[in-house]
Amino acid sequence: MTEEKRQRHKERMQQRKEIVDAGIARAQEDKGVFIVLSGDGKGKSSSGFGTALRALGHGYKVGVVQFIKGAWECGERNMLEHMPDVEFHVMGTGFTWETQDDEKDKQAAEQVWEKAKAMLQNPELHLVLFDEMTYALNYKWLDKNEVLEAIANRPVQQSVIITGRGAKKYLQDACDTYSEIKAVKHAFQAGIKAQKGIEW
Amino acid sequence: MTEEKRQRHKERMQQRKEIVDAGIARAQEDKGVFIVLSGDGKGKSSSGFGTALRALGHGYKVGVVQFIKGAWECGERNMLEHMPDVEFHVMGTGFTWETQDDEKDKQAAEQVWEKAKAMLQNPELHLVLFDEMTYALNYKWLDKNEVLEAIANRPVQQSVIITGRGAKKYLQDACDTYSEIKAVKHAFQAGIKAQKGIEW
Repeated sequence: MTEEKRQRHKERMQQRKEIVDAGIARAQEDKGVFIVLSGDGKGKSSSGFGTALRALGHGYKVGVVQFIKGAWECGERNMLEHMPDVEFHVMGTGFTWETQDDEKDKQAAEQVWEKAKAMLQNPELHLVLFDEMTYALNYKWLDKNEVLEAIANRPVQQSVIITGRGAKKYLQDACDTYSEIKAVKHAFQAGIKAQKGIEW
Repeated sequence: MTEEKRQRHKERMQQRKEIVDAGIARAQEDKGVFIVLSGDGKGKSSSGFGTALRALGHGYKVGVVQFIKGAWECGERNMLEHMPDVEFHVMGTGFTWETQDDEKDKQAAEQVWEKAKAMLQNPELHLVLFDEMTYALNYKWLDKNEVLEAIANRPVQQSVIITGRGAKKYLQDACDTYSEIKAVKHAFQAGIKAQKGIEW
């Protein structure tokens, strides 16, 4: 690398540092965030669980409710559910196209929502993860206004993550951070089997 | 819900189950996958670490190399780096706009790439996560052909995840699964401070 290029790189990095530092200076509100991770790509649930891991790594307590994957064996659940700093609940009916019984799914969702609601009132939980909750909302198993109200009234320092495909506009409007995970390409389409430890 | 609606729901779910089952029947190749998680949204690194958690939850061994966040305290590293099933290495220079020294960063990247390369030759590792590696590639600290070759020649059952903004087309072409994480909205823009346990 020439001296000139090195100098240019240094200037560019200095500029970027100033922009980043200015952003940090502006962002002064210290409170929990409400994050929605949606889209059709791989990485929504794993991102939620990765953030749970992150919070646990700072000594925080975490609550998790899985709204739809109950029947599957699932690596992240194996790891987290017996940790002392984790409260873990699962809606026990499996994927909805396996049960094909809307009423049964709705009852299961309502039951586990009671656990979720209690988490949203527990200031000891730094992070609450509602994995695959968009399905329960989109199928109208849960009342969206009740969910939004419970989230809005949570303890100030508590963060909430909702994952799942097809997040509706009311979720996007209500949250602080919304990431859309786009499947540009998926191994499944190329004929590679879903891999244990990667897809579940 | 009326009987008619219930029946319609059941038929729709039955149809969806057939589509899902047919996809599973088609996808027969049993091998590790190469996943790239890019885009400007929140959730790339956390998704990588969530997948690491998932693999660990099935009793698999995992390798992690962080290419850029070395100087920060980081919750996921606190959790993983002392686990017996995890091999963890960090490139020790912090964000590049903090060091502003391209040569020093390049050396650090080359050093940690040696660890990464050894992981790609170790069949005991079920999953290898190269967190924030796109930066090291885009700044040309690493030789992209050497990286792609090492990934292509890894053990058949090993999966690889690369995270980071700005994945170039050669990465998208080489991988099996590519998710782009779009920041539709971010709490930082609304003036909320980056939260410990959420953003790092």
